[in-house]
Amino acid sequence: METDNKKTEKLARYLGERIQEANRLAIEKVLSVEPVVVDVDVALNVIPGMTPDTVLHAGPPIEWERMCDPMKRAIRGALVFEGLADDEEGAEKLLVSNRITLSPNHHHDSVGPMTGVISASMPVIVTKDLTFGKTAYSTFNEGGGRVLWFGSFGKETLERLKWMRDVFAPVMKKVISKAGGIPVWSILAQGIQMGDECHNRHAASTNIFLKIITEHLLSTELPRDIALGVYRFIAGNSHFFLNVTMTACKLAMDAAHNIEDSTVVTVMSRNGTDFGIRVSGLGDTWFIAPAPYLLDALYNPGYGPDDGAPDIGDSSIIETMGLGGFAIAAAPAMASFAGGGFQDAVRITRDMGLITTAKNPKFGIPALDFEGTPTGIDIRKVVETGILPSINSAVVHKSLGVGQIGAGIVKAPYECFVKAIDAFAEKYGLAAI
Amino acid sequence: METDNKKTEKLARYLGERIQEANRLAIEKVLSVEPVVVDVDVALNVIPGMTPDTVLHAGPPIEWERMCDPMKRAIRGALVFEGLADDEEGAEKLLVSNRITLSPNHHHDSVGPMTGVISASMPVIVTKDLTFGKTAYSTFNEGGGRVLWFGSFGKETLERLKWMRDVFAPVMKKVISKAGGIPVWSILAQGIQMGDECHNRHAASTNIFLKIITEHLLSTELPRDIALGVYRFIAGNSHFFLNVTMTACKLAMDAAHNIEDSTVVTVMSRNGTDFGIRVSGLGDTWFIAPAPYLLDALYNPGYGPDDGAPDIGDSSIIETMGLGGFAIAAAPAMASFAGGGFQDAVRITRDMGLITTAKNPKFGIPALDFEGTPTGIDIRKVVETGILPSINSAVVHKSLGVGQIGAGIVKAPYECFVKAIDAFAEKYGLAAI
Repeated sequence: METDNKKTEKLARYLGERIQEANRLAIEKVLSVEPVVVDVDVALNVIPGMTPDTVLHAGPPIEWERMCDPMKRAIRGALVFEGLADDEEGAEKLLVSNRITLSPNHHHDSVGPMTGVISASMPVIVTKDLTFGKTAYSTFNEGGGRVLWFGSFGKETLERLKWMRDVFAPVMKKVISKAGGIPVWSILAQGIQMGDECHNRHAASTNIFLKIITEHLLSTELPRDIALGVYRFIAGNSHFFLNVTMTACKLAMDAAHNIEDSTVVTVMSRNGTDFGIRVSGLGDTWFIAPAPYLLDALYNPGYGPDDGAPDIGDSSIIETMGLGGFAIAAAPAMASFAGGGFQDAVRITRDMGLITTAKNPKFGIPALDFEGTPTGIDIRKVVETGILPSINSAVVHKSLGVGQIGAGIVKAPYECFVKAIDAFAEKYGLAAI
Repeated sequence: METDNKKTEKLARYLGERIQEANRLAIEKVLSVEPVVVDVDVALNVIPGMTPDTVLHAGPPIEWERMCDPMKRAIRGALVFEGLADDEEGAEKLLVSNRITLSPNHHHDSVGPMTGVISASMPVIVTKDLTFGKTAYSTFNEGGGRVLWFGSFGKETLERLKWMRDVFAPVMKKVISKAGGIPVWSILAQGIQMGDECHNRHAASTNIFLKIITEHLLSTELPRDIALGVYRFIAGNSHFFLNVTMTACKLAMDAAHNIEDSTVVTVMSRNGTDFGIRVSGLGDTWFIAPAPYLLDALYNPGYGPDDGAPDIGDSSIIETMGLGGFAIAAAPAMASFAGGGFQDAVRITRDMGLITTAKNPKFGIPALDFEGTPTGIDIRKVVETGILPSINSAVVHKSLGVGQIGAGIVKAPYECFVKAIDAFAEKYGLAAI
């Protein structure tokens, strides 16, 4: 027996060392990624696996019937935008008859906030990682009001999407080309110095992005009203940079994916029904649990916790990379969404330090003496401590199609991490120890 | 004797109540000022008392001979710019022969950072207080390099000043008119949320200002290269908004000036030789002490404390109004200039709370749970506690004319406050108590 115990201990230690080395490598990759917005193109042209009758969505895979109401509205809207259906009823028919391919963004090198819907003719941001050469895609942020990303669709939504496709995107393509690409980390690093946690607050980073591209907008031969329209669209939406941030975080976590022995989480994502995670050493398996509701949230007047759909969006790729909720000490205003103050924000960032692998020196939090943001969630640490990843999120109405009704903080479900640990033990023979 | 004591106590209490009421009124005025940049004009056209052979400067009054080297360089440069002298030697001759009127900005509703030099044909920012109707003036910030405000002058300085006068200012005049004026407090309030203390760090507020005016720049009929030049000039200088901030703070403190019985400081200013303060209840008297050196500063490579001129500039009007050093907890990066961290920054802001009259609810510091910045220095509290107003400042070379060589923290001299207390006691009969 003693010999057995010793053998077991030795094996556990050996595995622990292997995991530690794998996680070190994973974080090294995360930290060495250099994401640059290099182009704007049409989804069909560039997103791998995109077809004219495919609609991509946020979160883990899910069939039409199980989707939440806001996700369904966004997808129907996308089909009308694509001209595949004349109206939402027509779109519904196409969808129930399974003539449309629905697929998660994450299976196509893509990400989208909230419903995250991407259809074939939508213009997308093309962000390239200069270190490892991979590319990630996202739509441009539509802003507020009746917008697909918040599961709302109407005449104005369609008009805006057409303007974004026909006017906005071609200008942005020119401008980004003129700029020679826009490096993302440096903008986010400045954002963290300016009160952005880079998920629910992108006010500073959007200003910095705008400042950079405006120089090229001014030097491009364009009709004055077109240039002004493009400028106003970005200047009027403090969340504009969110989608860019997501592509960068996607690239960083993709770089850390598929490292044998690594327990680092490389995706956290929600489709409004399910919450799913992926783990570096566990391939492309999703570990799924029901998507949680936002209990700690600030609701618009007239709305409350009973009105919200479950948590939704690929935007938690930001927390997976160590910004957003993990960097909330940089943006105390975000803690106030959950009724908290500065000390609560610091406590959350500190807690995230207990379930992560490293600090990201690129993103120094001023009020923590420029300590880096906690990065690289370790499924072992989540399960051991019971501390759950804290995600800054928004709430959409569960049934009325009115779009955003609140914003706040949500915790990733424990169940996902337990399932991942079990799968890890199974795959790597830890179950035998 | 007992009767005398009682009478004295009663008088002291009475005076204390009068002072408290006067200071309450002073702060009420500070808080109700609404500064808006309304125009751009030529100094000679708008600054009261400006003449073609007048040069205004920072700080309390001082004669040519006693001025520090950087101030002298800036004034000689201004005379060359005005065409009153062909070169610096010619300017020197004019100055030693007393043919030029030298006068403090503060005597002309004006303010300027560092040397603060304003001459007749320079374009100035015109900021109006919508509440009480007063106006304040400052030049546009020249940026870095060989610039008059840092006491440096050369061919490039002259070229830049001419471009600012002939190209930049006329465009800004149009743009500000198109914008219908630019309210200053709302920009600074956002700046405080974004890591600006609004003196040595204006990165966020400059971005916000730029964002506002660019919309009007884009919609104005202008040659593309001119618009681009104006845009780049602002975008390339993170201190651009400093001079605007100063006009707003000048208006706020002017509103609180000349209130009978008030012990609130309405001006702190330095000319590189002397440090002077003015007090609300003590009229236009300056209380003067030698300008201090910046001991807690970060120097550019190759320079040290021995190379710096004494502290200089009207920019401490910002601290007088409760931003800059008083708001340093909003910008921990600024504390690091003096070798400190976040807790040092918080301690400074807390200390400033001990010598001030109120908190300014417009400027909530995120890391202090949005507590307002300490506002309205009380000469009594400074003298009682020995806590000196903390000013975020820059250092210029004392003799080489190379401009800025560092930045850091400086304390207002105790002597100014003691002199003011003595004058207050004398004027209000407290000496007799």
